[in-house]
Amino acid sequence: MQQRSRDTRKQIIEAAVALFCEAGYEAASVADICDRAGVSKGAFYHHFPSKQALFLDVLEDWLGRIDAQLFSPSMIGGDVPACILNMAEMLGFVFREASGRLPIFMEFMVQASRDQAVWNAAIQPYRRYQNRFAELIANGQKSGSIKENLDPHLVARVLVSLAAGILLQAVVDPRAADWEKVTREGIRMITEKIRRSS
Amino acid sequence: MQQRSRDTRKQIIEAAVALFCEAGYEAASVADICDRAGVSKGAFYHHFPSKQALFLDVLEDWLGRIDAQLFSPSMIGGDVPACILNMAEMLGFVFREASGRLPIFMEFMVQASRDQAVWNAAIQPYRRYQNRFAELIANGQKSGSIKENLDPHLVARVLVSLAAGILLQAVVDPRAADWEKVTREGIRMITEKIRRSS
Repeated sequence: MQQRSRDTRKQIIEAAVALFCEAGYEAASVADICDRAGVSKGAFYHHFPSKQALFLDVLEDWLGRIDAQLFSPSMIGGDVPACILNMAEMLGFVFREASGRLPIFMEFMVQASRDQAVWNAAIQPYRRYQNRFAELIANGQKSGSIKENLDPHLVARVLVSLAAGILLQAVVDPRAADWEKVTREGIRMITEKIRRSS
Repeated sequence: MQQRSRDTRKQIIEAAVALFCEAGYEAASVADICDRAGVSKGAFYHHFPSKQALFLDVLEDWLGRIDAQLFSPSMIGGDVPACILNMAEMLGFVFREASGRLPIFMEFMVQASRDQAVWNAAIQPYRRYQNRFAELIANGQKSGSIKENLDPHLVARVLVSLAAGILLQAVVDPRAADWEKVTREGIRMITEKIRRSS
């Protein structure tokens, strides 16, 4: 792709993300996105076949980046409980990075519950996370740092649920709490509970 | 209110909840709701000044019922850790009761992040929960069943976050897990972690 074409694509995505956050996916039209990005409808449809295609692209990009950050080799090396605590710190970083963009997280979830295409796009990376966390827990059990009598998938679901619930509340009531601290302390409680004392 | 008027009101609410779940709050018009309920627009506006007023009414009713169930005198009597575990069972009950209606939970949250009136209506009961959970933890500290070196508000946020995250995932991927079990086991991990061993 030419540099200019890449710039246009980026402008469209940034305008769309801003509008999805402010007005919602349903309310933001392709015309609104073009207006905001300062591009023609022709340019829009050159890059994306539809608003939904753009939406799915944003979703894939966002989930892919979180994935890459959370499960980078430097993150998942070493002791498993320490690794989970590192991930909790990383989630704090995701909060700071995303800040105003967090409502999109919920938009994705709501769309996913109603639209099969969005659901398919959202559910695959989500199940991948879930499985990777479960693998991590299972590895901890093998290497002796996590208690053996636990179901790795159940522990993974509890960890993912806690993180998702904190994200949800950070969107709705960002100033109610120090959400990074809630993340760190909450994940720590569960981690200490599942850690095998040496 | 006359019985017939109450029936009409109930019909309107049921039609609106079904449409909000299926199509979303934005997409469901007053005309759609009236069609589904089999009532005239005149009847609708006799009961509700606007779609938003109906939405807020549904929200208040829903949160009020959860509130009454969770914090009933029979629930919050006795040992605090046992009480929290009872509440986790109750959440399982809420899942079964709500099932198809859960998408509305997210609709509320998304609307709340965008609309001041919805935010005000959602945030007051939410903060009330938060405070009630924190009070419960503080009571447990006073009566010796919860560790003293914990911030009651932080513990309450972790518990509420876990429950909210499980709800969120149960909406998006209801069949992925036994969400009642995830609730029970997740809350139990945290409860055992904060319980003061006697």
